Amino acid sequence: MSKKTVSSGKRSIGTVAIRWHGGSLELLDQRLLPDQEHWITLEGASGVAQAIGDMVVRGAPAIGISAAYGVALAARHAGGGDWKAEIRQAIRELAASRPTAVNLFWALQEMEREFACCHSLDEAVNRLARTAVRIHEEDLAANLAMADNALEHMAAEKPFSVLTHCNTGALATGGYGTALGVIRRLHEAKLLKNVYADETRPWLQGSRLTAWELSRDGIPVTLNADGAAAAIMAAGKVRWVIVGADRITANGDVANKIGTYSLAVLARHHRVGFMVVAPSSTVDMSLESGKDIPIEEREGSELRQVRGMPIAPDGVKVFNPVFDVTPAGLIDAIVTEKGVVSTPDLTGMRSLFR
Amino acid sequence: MSKKTVSSGKRSIGTVAIRWHGGSLELLDQRLLPDQEHWITLEGASGVAQAIGDMVVRGAPAIGISAAYGVALAARHAGGGDWKAEIRQAIRELAASRPTAVNLFWALQEMEREFACCHSLDEAVNRLARTAVRIHEEDLAANLAMADNALEHMAAEKPFSVLTHCNTGALATGGYGTALGVIRRLHEAKLLKNVYADETRPWLQGSRLTAWELSRDGIPVTLNADGAAAAIMAAGKVRWVIVGADRITANGDVANKIGTYSLAVLARHHRVGFMVVAPSSTVDMSLESGKDIPIEEREGSELRQVRGMPIAPDGVKVFNPVFDVTPAGLIDAIVTEKGVVSTPDLTGMRSLFR
Repeated sequence: MSKKTVSSGKRSIGTVAIRWHGGSLELLDQRLLPDQEHWITLEGASGVAQAIGDMVVRGAPAIGISAAYGVALAARHAGGGDWKAEIRQAIRELAASRPTAVNLFWALQEMEREFACCHSLDEAVNRLARTAVRIHEEDLAANLAMADNALEHMAAEKPFSVLTHCNTGALATGGYGTALGVIRRLHEAKLLKNVYADETRPWLQGSRLTAWELSRDGIPVTLNADGAAAAIMAAGKVRWVIVGADRITANGDVANKIGTYSLAVLARHHRVGFMVVAPSSTVDMSLESGKDIPIEEREGSELRQVRGMPIAPDGVKVFNPVFDVTPAGLIDAIVTEKGVVSTPDLTGMRSLFR
Repeated sequence: MSKKTVSSGKRSIGTVAIRWHGGSLELLDQRLLPDQEHWITLEGASGVAQAIGDMVVRGAPAIGISAAYGVALAARHAGGGDWKAEIRQAIRELAASRPTAVNLFWALQEMEREFACCHSLDEAVNRLARTAVRIHEEDLAANLAMADNALEHMAAEKPFSVLTHCNTGALATGGYGTALGVIRRLHEAKLLKNVYADETRPWLQGSRLTAWELSRDGIPVTLNADGAAAAIMAAGKVRWVIVGADRITANGDVANKIGTYSLAVLARHHRVGFMVVAPSSTVDMSLESGKDIPIEEREGSELRQVRGMPIAPDGVKVFNPVFDVTPAGLIDAIVTEKGVVSTPDLTGMRSLFR
């Protein structure tokens, strides 16, 4: 997990933004891409929580993995006095870093379960580090598996183009990617004509991260304004919209980057397929529907400025929800490593997830 | 027409970005808003054509008005030799400045008609200047009339919120505005709760111009990412989407700023009204449908950079159409100064426009 571009068997898994060194965690600062590839070294859970809150690392699976390493760091650097309280405090702090992506809470729960079995600090140090690495490795394996599942589901014979939103690649995950993993897999199978990448305002994950990641990996990409996606669909340029997810509820509703819901409505209108790709750690069967998902609103400055440069009148009021909810009824397929739920609903979701 | 904020009867018409001084034309450089209010003085048609191409002035009606003044300047500064050829050349140059907004060609045709009646350069100088001023004044009058028409059409009793896209205010017209004129009128009538303004990538007309114009005029505005419009509609926050137009064809199809078509699909899905507001100079009965409208594609740098600052990998491929076409079937009302066409089609359009 420590090299920048890792190969998994024959498959290149892309540029992973998380490096674990046992006593420290390195994160590629995604706020500075594509201009600068700057790595930040973290030695404690607070730093990791802050890095998640500030979006040094982003992408639901990558947030979960980083939080897991954060707990491992908390154990490693625990004072030795009330080490249990210290670790518990670290878990609380990490849980408060961002509200919407459930992978964060899932990963912290996995870590807590391990932690509950630890009888000594030494045991905790080893066990929590091992678990974090396992979470990371399993995420990569899940991505590879869901790409295969998606390919089978699409049953394509000739190359076609797709549209994607936000960044769901190696940068957002343990490697390879969710939606971008499927796109990678299509490219490997010579079934990919072109990727239209929404620039994804306000944070520009599409221009800054997806365009960078795909260009770097030699996958054909064309950047477009979010508002141009409808015209792209109307012109018949794409067959599938493929996106990731931050939380999927029991009925198959999907919270994902703001703008996703818009694409789902547009895809249905244009009879373009709409596919959500996410590991089962994104599924939250405890929530009945998307209405129950807490939607994070971030600072108005994300819209009033671009990378610190003002682009709107000072202090103008802003509505900046960074996720939206796509109802299951607009989704053609939810692809996970456990299988595919077609035209998702409660029954379909239950058949795969307990 | 020369003061920055002009009053028309009781109504404030907002900040007009075009000032005519007889021998020169002043344009407020809209590329620099909201940071700087910088006026550019132009004394010839070439400069006006370039200002239109470079988007110093933008907005379909404002482009038409500026081009008309450009022809007046060509007459004023004609050499006196083959002055007819000089003016004709100026008209050609202005016509080549931008392809989509038909108001440009309409205004130039009006000017050509006047020009055809001129027997001397002196006559041309006077007549063309008078005609340009008339085009400007009539645009303002049209805006005021269509705001009244829209208000009557909406028949609202209680205040409600609307969503708008791009900038269609005083800055984009001869004053008051088209879609933003309707919004101004709703505000005057105390029927406006709030305006959600799409930031409108790539050129950010929403954040840079609409938010600025509305804030300045004391009209409540909230800025949102283009991708958040769907979530705003799903939450039931707005009753109408109100937009302008760059060209309307005989069947009622509408070319407007990229992202408009997306809003029309979303509005229909959410049962939100979709209103297009434009003067009759935007109607092009010579084109059968939106398929015939030339859609301008602009430089990829508009997406790769924000105001000169890179935000995407160098040289990444970009698809940057700056307009899209909304089919008449998705439009609830086209509002002009001549009246309103409800659920527009060829018959409805013909009943108002010859």
